[in-house]
Amino acid sequence: MPLPLILARSKTSVLPTKTLQVNGFVCKDPMAVNADDFFKAAKLDQPRDTTKSKVGSNVTLINVMQLPGLNTLGISLARIDYAPLGQNPPHTHPRATEILTVLEGTLYVGFVTSNQADRSNKLFAKVLNKGDVFVFPQGLIHFQFNPVHDKPTVALAALSSQNPGAITIANAVFGSKPPISDDVLAKAFQVQKGTIDWLQAQFWENNHY
Amino acid sequence: MPLPLILARSKTSVLPTKTLQVNGFVCKDPMAVNADDFFKAAKLDQPRDTTKSKVGSNVTLINVMQLPGLNTLGISLARIDYAPLGQNPPHTHPRATEILTVLEGTLYVGFVTSNQADRSNKLFAKVLNKGDVFVFPQGLIHFQFNPVHDKPTVALAALSSQNPGAITIANAVFGSKPPISDDVLAKAFQVQKGTIDWLQAQFWENNHY
Amino acid sequence: MPLPLILARSKTSVLPTKTLQVNGFVCKDPMAVNADDFFKAAKLDQPRDTTKSKVGSNVTLINVMQLPGLNTLGISLARIDYAPLGQNPPHTHPRATEILTVLEGTLYVGFVTSNQADRSNKLFAKVLNKGDVFVFPQGLIHFQFNPVHDKPTVALAALSSQNPGAITIANAVFGSKPPISDDVLAKAFQVQKGTIDWLQAQFWENNHY
Amino acid sequence: MPLPLILARSKTSVLPTKTLQVNGFVCKDPMAVNADDFFKAAKLDQPRDTTKSKVGSNVTLINVMQLPGLNTLGISLARIDYAPLGQNPPHTHPRATEILTVLEGTLYVGFVTSNQADRSNKLFAKVLNKGDVFVFPQGLIHFQFNPVHDKPTVALAALSSQNPGAITIANAVFGSKPPISDDVLAKAFQVQKGTIDWLQAQFWENNHY
Amino acid sequence: MPLPLILARSKTSVLPTKTLQVNGFVCKDPMAVNADDFFKAAKLDQPRDTTKSKVGSNVTLINVMQLPGLNTLGISLARIDYAPLGQNPPHTHPRATEILTVLEGTLYVGFVTSNQADRSNKLFAKVLNKGDVFVFPQGLIHFQFNPVHDKPTVALAALSSQNPGAITIANAVFGSKPPISDDVLAKAFQVQKGTIDWLQAQFWENNHY
Amino acid sequence: MPLPLILARSKTSVLPTKTLQVNGFVCKDPMAVNADDFFKAAKLDQPRDTTKSKVGSNVTLINVMQLPGLNTLGISLARIDYAPLGQNPPHTHPRATEILTVLEGTLYVGFVTSNQADRSNKLFAKVLNKGDVFVFPQGLIHFQFNPVHDKPTVALAALSSQNPGAITIANAVFGSKPPISDDVLAKAFQVQKGTIDWLQAQFWENNHY
Repeated sequence: MPLPLILARSKTSVLPTKTLQVNGFVCKDPMAVNADDFFKAAKLDQPRDTTKSKVGSNVTLINVMQLPGLNTLGISLARIDYAPLGQNPPHTHPRATEILTVLEGTLYVGFVTSNQADRSNKLFAKVLNKGDVFVFPQGLIHFQFNPVHDKPTVALAALSSQNPGAITIANAVFGSKPPISDDVLAKAFQVQKGTIDWLQAQFWENNHY
Repeated sequence: MPLPLILARSKTSVLPTKTLQVNGFVCKDPMAVNADDFFKAAKLDQPRDTTKSKVGSNVTLINVMQLPGLNTLGISLARIDYAPLGQNPPHTHPRATEILTVLEGTLYVGFVTSNQADRSNKLFAKVLNKGDVFVFPQGLIHFQFNPVHDKPTVALAALSSQNPGAITIANAVFGSKPPISDDVLAKAFQVQKGTIDWLQAQFWENNHY
Repeated sequence: MPLPLILARSKTSVLPTKTLQVNGFVCKDPMAVNADDFFKAAKLDQPRDTTKSKVGSNVTLINVMQLPGLNTLGISLARIDYAPLGQNPPHTHPRATEILTVLEGTLYVGFVTSNQADRSNKLFAKVLNKGDVFVFPQGLIHFQFNPVHDKPTVALAALSSQNPGAITIANAVFGSKPPISDDVLAKAFQVQKGTIDWLQAQFWENNHY
Repeated sequence: MPLPLILARSKTSVLPTKTLQVNGFVCKDPMAVNADDFFKAAKLDQPRDTTKSKVGSNVTLINVMQLPGLNTLGISLARIDYAPLGQNPPHTHPRATEILTVLEGTLYVGFVTSNQADRSNKLFAKVLNKGDVFVFPQGLIHFQFNPVHDKPTVALAALSSQNPGAITIANAVFGSKPPISDDVLAKAFQVQKGTIDWLQAQFWENNHY
Repeated sequence: MPLPLILARSKTSVLPTKTLQVNGFVCKDPMAVNADDFFKAAKLDQPRDTTKSKVGSNVTLINVMQLPGLNTLGISLARIDYAPLGQNPPHTHPRATEILTVLEGTLYVGFVTSNQADRSNKLFAKVLNKGDVFVFPQGLIHFQFNPVHDKPTVALAALSSQNPGAITIANAVFGSKPPISDDVLAKAFQVQKGTIDWLQAQFWENNHY
Repeated sequence: MPLPLILARSKTSVLPTKTLQVNGFVCKDPMAVNADDFFKAAKLDQPRDTTKSKVGSNVTLINVMQLPGLNTLGISLARIDYAPLGQNPPHTHPRATEILTVLEGTLYVGFVTSNQADRSNKLFAKVLNKGDVFVFPQGLIHFQFNPVHDKPTVALAALSSQNPGAITIANAVFGSKPPISDDVLAKAFQVQKGTIDWLQAQFWENNHY
């Protein structure tokens, strides 16, 4: 399901009926539907600007937010541009598996297995060249990194949901508003509280949604 | 589910236990799993040969048959090369929605709606240029065609299943073995039995699976 | 899901709230629900008129459109009357498997397997007599035909969805509005463009929804 | 899922590999599959003997146990013969909704709603005539009864699972082996322990599975 | 799905748009959502009064009705207090499996298997002590009973749905409004009609929803 | 699905047939199943030792690994003991929502929303007292912390899967084997490579699976 549906039996803070939502979106009159509802001039062939991104990437999503006709259809696309030495930092997609192929350049990718008796936290990583394919199973922490210092990389990814969701790990942990208690994080990450405080004072920008 | 599981209480024609299948595939020992099980050097950047195809296309699938690690993960990819004036002929994917983007060239695409009181059999079609995206909802008849006479087209598609299946309409209807009764087809298609017989005598080649 | 939910972030072409839909239907007040919401005097014992049908069949559906209480409940029924030599022409149900039994007469039935390396497009067909049962797996092209020249046939079918959908192959391919490009169809079906044009000029009537 | 899959990490009581099951059934070799795997000469047109049944009915199931090809396909059929004044006693199908039509005779049918603040335990009942249709939502207690003293009734039902399951209420409650404590049942049913003991001493025969 | 969605094509008895429902609940504006939507001061540590209950139990539910934030999230909790010799009488949860642990006291629990050729109506029962865990598979008839005459028992249960539903067997069968025909019940339960009439005249109180 | 099913078309590294798995477990012979397959003397009333845990908690899981009868049944339990000032560090459950209640003590809990245009990375946190309930939606990063310096806390949680999985964020990110490139992590977490190297040299112990 895309956004969690938050409910209330009381009538306070209820959405005005005009904007009542199904899967978070308003339905179009079926008689008015046409080919354009399944189309987007997404310019997925065009390079994106990665210079403004702290982490050196730019993610162009084509999911139900950009192409409403995708609702209920269970799939989405993304184009990812990586600056030289840029990355799509460690993140998860709570609601989808991702499959990725490199269109240009080189890409170091990986995911980490979940906690399992003998095989916890194993990193499965590969260096991908143009034309290679890699899979990131749903919900696992993964990342991509362009190891080349003088050429950008471009990848195309597909996700098994019209609204996969994204959790950027560093941002969620250290950039939440309000912040998570620094006692909790200091112990969880085995660092000083001061380190946590410093981290929480940084600016954490999401590179995608 | 990929292949229908065909069952029999009797023990005749039972798969020998060594080849017993889960979702049609044998499971690997979890302790032996590694990054290569999620990777494929698919060469999706390389042009494919469309000259041998009657319909002028070549489909390169990256689904669970090619990348076993995709099992249970609900997604797959395909690269489609279209010769000048080539097509991916009308077909359906019984088990997945498809989202497609054009990497090079031009592509005329469309799908036909199912039977609905006021809106049966409507064709939703678009001409796509490089970078555009289009969606083909699960189970609907759709096609793609390269309308340019002197340049190939290349598209990348993703499907919302690790084993979407494919039914090439003309092949299934006129190329089945054994053939469907020509009485049935003549009436269904409003043509002479002789026309059906002639069609059934042609060679029908699947361009993808 | 029955009809694809077509969405738009903008407020143009939005359904007026009075007709806002859930699964395409408006919910009844639970306090007003009664046994009649689960009942239909469907007259499934009565013969239907097959004389007006080009293909010689008449399909009586009992799905969520006819019996709204079926919404969310995942099942529907159909009675199919076949004139002598009549048929339910090749079609698919994108969202359901169908199980059928013959109440009267004889019926030649079959489905075609999808594209699979060694077993593409195999026709699985049987002649059914009164009391026999046959299964048409979801999404596969199938048909039924009454091979007897002087007696009608009657069948009862159940489908694993409250809104299975139906795609009548010949109609969708040759009867779409607007028509699919005759270049595409001529090559897909290995016939002359003129044949396609002639086919597209015929009247294609759906015998069921 | 049909039978609950009972697991054990230890190797005691493990199924010998030859009979290892998928969904409780052994898979047939796909290359050996044919039309007969989707067919059953079920004689659903033939009356069944209801004289041996205490409750005066006879249920002929066509589910995955009788037609193995139904596995994974989510649907099944049943023919039910009711003697004059016979019934299909109160029961549930834990895994399916049922839709029923009367082929011959008359049938008093109903289901009881579950516990809900204002609408608990409401009986939704109808008298059905030939050709009528009624729906029993999944998991709810329902029954059918032939109110006519001198004619049998015949119904055809479809269920939204290849293995819907059945729980005959009286049998499960009073006929379990070993018996449920008579203290529990006496209080639950507001009767004397002696009444429970007497009930538990009766013979409880399942009329279907 | 929680409540069955009852539909009507006509506009009579349609919910006024202000109270139009999704899964039976009105959505809250996402911008107004906060931690309290996922919180409940449920006092699950506090004993409940079992003296007013005929069956000697008190069930405190924490499902989507009490904690609206649970909608779509697939889980709920319940605290059950049992008086000495009190019970949670035989019932089913049509939409969920239940897992239960004893917090205080002793508890005799069990479920009955459904109709299966060789294993119908088997009672699987255990006496649980503090800290023990037991599982009641979805849809099966089960009960719990405190066998101790001078101490209460307390259990905590979780169910695999935000709205599992509950059917109290005795109440549904003998306490329905209107009553099920006593002809039907007399034969189903192998008792005299007079016994049925007497039962149907009793007061049947649901101890939970 | 519990463990990802890793597949290989080749026969190398294939599980010997005796240990072939369904959902990762071997099925027990249905005729040998009994009440003990649904029971566990889990001692959930007993305090656990939290002194050996770096993070000061001890998680006792009752999922399909501990209670095999839970397979396919979609639910599990956990008891969590927190030392004074102990925590269950930030983690996710890729496959389940969690609902938690405090049995003893006090607990500061929270989860962080995923990336959403206007509401990314919001912390929803509460301080829970005995008897309170809180919900952690599937896949979101969450934690619990006992803010009291001299008393332990005990909670009981239920999860909407028989095998929810767990990813301990700090461990997966900084404790993976082999380690994630320190270039990637330094940039993602906005710290020096040296800091990353130091973190990766620590010992990261999972407190649960």
